[in-house]
Amino acid sequence: METCTTDTVDRPTSRSGILGKSRIENLADGVFSIAMTLLILEVRVPEIADHTETWELVKQLLAVWPKLLSFCLSFVVLGVYWVGHHNQFHYVRHTDRPFLWINIFYLMSISFLPFSAGLLGTYNTQQVAVMIYGFHLTTIGLISYWHWAYAWHHNLLDPHLDPRVYRMTMWRILMAPILSVIAIGLSFVSLTVSVLVYMLLLVACILPSRRDWRFSVFRRHPSSE
Amino acid sequence: METCTTDTVDRPTSRSGILGKSRIENLADGVFSIAMTLLILEVRVPEIADHTETWELVKQLLAVWPKLLSFCLSFVVLGVYWVGHHNQFHYVRHTDRPFLWINIFYLMSISFLPFSAGLLGTYNTQQVAVMIYGFHLTTIGLISYWHWAYAWHHNLLDPHLDPRVYRMTMWRILMAPILSVIAIGLSFVSLTVSVLVYMLLLVACILPSRRDWRFSVFRRHPSSE
Amino acid sequence: METCTTDTVDRPTSRSGILGKSRIENLADGVFSIAMTLLILEVRVPEIADHTETWELVKQLLAVWPKLLSFCLSFVVLGVYWVGHHNQFHYVRHTDRPFLWINIFYLMSISFLPFSAGLLGTYNTQQVAVMIYGFHLTTIGLISYWHWAYAWHHNLLDPHLDPRVYRMTMWRILMAPILSVIAIGLSFVSLTVSVLVYMLLLVACILPSRRDWRFSVFRRHPSSE
Amino acid sequence: METCTTDTVDRPTSRSGILGKSRIENLADGVFSIAMTLLILEVRVPEIADHTETWELVKQLLAVWPKLLSFCLSFVVLGVYWVGHHNQFHYVRHTDRPFLWINIFYLMSISFLPFSAGLLGTYNTQQVAVMIYGFHLTTIGLISYWHWAYAWHHNLLDPHLDPRVYRMTMWRILMAPILSVIAIGLSFVSLTVSVLVYMLLLVACILPSRRDWRFSVFRRHPSSE
Repeated sequence: METCTTDTVDRPTSRSGILGKSRIENLADGVFSIAMTLLILEVRVPEIADHTETWELVKQLLAVWPKLLSFCLSFVVLGVYWVGHHNQFHYVRHTDRPFLWINIFYLMSISFLPFSAGLLGTYNTQQVAVMIYGFHLTTIGLISYWHWAYAWHHNLLDPHLDPRVYRMTMWRILMAPILSVIAIGLSFVSLTVSVLVYMLLLVACILPSRRDWRFSVFRRHPSSE
Repeated sequence: METCTTDTVDRPTSRSGILGKSRIENLADGVFSIAMTLLILEVRVPEIADHTETWELVKQLLAVWPKLLSFCLSFVVLGVYWVGHHNQFHYVRHTDRPFLWINIFYLMSISFLPFSAGLLGTYNTQQVAVMIYGFHLTTIGLISYWHWAYAWHHNLLDPHLDPRVYRMTMWRILMAPILSVIAIGLSFVSLTVSVLVYMLLLVACILPSRRDWRFSVFRRHPSSE
Repeated sequence: METCTTDTVDRPTSRSGILGKSRIENLADGVFSIAMTLLILEVRVPEIADHTETWELVKQLLAVWPKLLSFCLSFVVLGVYWVGHHNQFHYVRHTDRPFLWINIFYLMSISFLPFSAGLLGTYNTQQVAVMIYGFHLTTIGLISYWHWAYAWHHNLLDPHLDPRVYRMTMWRILMAPILSVIAIGLSFVSLTVSVLVYMLLLVACILPSRRDWRFSVFRRHPSSE
Repeated sequence: METCTTDTVDRPTSRSGILGKSRIENLADGVFSIAMTLLILEVRVPEIADHTETWELVKQLLAVWPKLLSFCLSFVVLGVYWVGHHNQFHYVRHTDRPFLWINIFYLMSISFLPFSAGLLGTYNTQQVAVMIYGFHLTTIGLISYWHWAYAWHHNLLDPHLDPRVYRMTMWRILMAPILSVIAIGLSFVSLTVSVLVYMLLLVACILPSRRDWRFSVFRRHPSSE
């Protein structure tokens, strides 16, 4: 009977009385969903002096497209990192104080995205905006990598986790900052190409990789879960 | 004893190590509640130069009504889709990667509503605003349909789900985009009629249909739940 | 064993396949916490032309007090209604479609508070702002009353609920709209008195009443809970 | 069997039918995550007349640093208090009405942070902004202390809680208001030193203290948890 009680109350909490896994996930879900929804505040309703001028409104609405593109791009970025964060947490069994704070810094970098997205949407013809966006993506990716590597090296993960799954996930995480750095470099050639690399990165993250299928095989074995 | 443990921890998770049902629902609840509350930011407190001029304030407050109407309309739209999303998830037993991403694109279309609502509230006399609003509703409805059809065709739903319930729900989902397209067409005749069709659509979604009652009968049989 | 499973998965869901209790509570918690936090957006950082002019900044900060007061007042209003909503839900055992929609309209009236609060904070010397605020509080209170009465008359509440507790709660809910109407009336005499009545109302809601203690006695009997 | 049911449904609720522990934690998580994400709204995308002027944009972006610093500082402040709030709640076993309202006032002080942060970011050269920020931190700290002391003196905490842990936590909580008062005092000497003290305070809160390790020893004994 005790087993039941212990398992339903969130067991995989912390080793040191610090915040457990489910609480961090809760805060992360909150920050992600708010950052996603705040992005729309950067796409403002155009203001025109004479509300009856149809063509003026249409023209202004068409001019909104860079902001719209930045909104969609950034929403998908947040989606990718939200999925990534939960995938990592799927294997987390313990938390400790530094791990908790890596999470808070991670969320800080996430909640900063509406700024970079707004910048890219407003100054889409400026290299500096494209570079800051890429730099921001790189930062999020590196903190994400730090998060995963810390959890592994401090034995916070499921002890049954196959080291190959660890390494696969690691490379998957590193793909984003590597491609972002390439995109920053390409911004010296063409801003359009640079933004296309960001999009390519997202498509790569969304599409299931072969690794993903091997991954699913590993998981299926412990049939009780 | 193991049954207990397995059932209380969210069992109906994913087949491929990807995010489970309850996490997606959590993100969706977050995005819906934030989008609902952000709508109010489009209804701005009127600013008048002289704070003591009562009639000027009253006049400005009365002029707020199109924004207020758009707020109410859009809040109910979000309510309808929130109910619809959860109704669909009630039958979901598994998730996979494409399903997860359909959900994220669905939430993207949801979080975009404060923009369309702001547009409709500010330019209520412009056909283009009414059309964009209708186009947006159509998009949400079609993604919602895609969500439901994908889950069915990829066996992500409860295997005991009656195909008739599946089809009924499908038609219920399609009702919104069909009526929205009609409303867009009617906007060429009269903007007021067009907005009235949106309202009618909401009333139709709120009111319990005969299907709803048959639905409840289907569900009552598996008495343990 | 089945009892365990059935009880831990949220049993007190709906009778008609519609959204269960815990999902509504989730959305409500989201809307309440966002509305509470959005209130601060109405208290804007003063903008002065010359950033080095200390006295100008101090003067502008002191002028912020009506907005600050409106922020505190409205935050406590939201706190009172959040507590009230959960107290009501404590007894809810079933949900149905109309009950779900009463909840959504209730949340609509809640999410509208940042507007009324901003109005009161900006035009604290205008009777119309004080009246709209009172009218808004009355509306929230009446929907809250509808919520409770509907749940009672449609047998959605715990069948062991003492009718006296039902009636006590009903009067407690009605206290807010009654006092708000009085405050609206008093606004013809003095705006300060009117705002004081709103504050008095909050204090009355925060303070534990004698009923509260009797209430706690009722609850203590079913010792297993 | 009943033990199972009782334990999985949130047992450590209230003694008086009032809101239980998990609901308060839910609201707190919501308010914290929103306040964290709203901070970014104070870091606005610079607006320049001619969108093609690169150097003007770069200059404006560099001028954003005080707002960026205030964003990071305030995000970490919210992180520290979020951790602190959950650490306190880890020991809470019961709630009562005054405790509930201390929590709501606590959240009010938390949700006010975007204002103080915006003030500090905009007027970083003005002593009054630095002082208001420090005064705000002091207030949050004192309410946090009140929260903890109230819970202890009204027997709302885990009865097995070691009084030494209670006192250690108390001093840890009081460290923030004490250092904030010192920072306010130092603002008369130098604003930079004052802000550095705020940062020092955060570093002290993030770093694990020796107490933390002793703390973890206390907790490890009840091995079932």
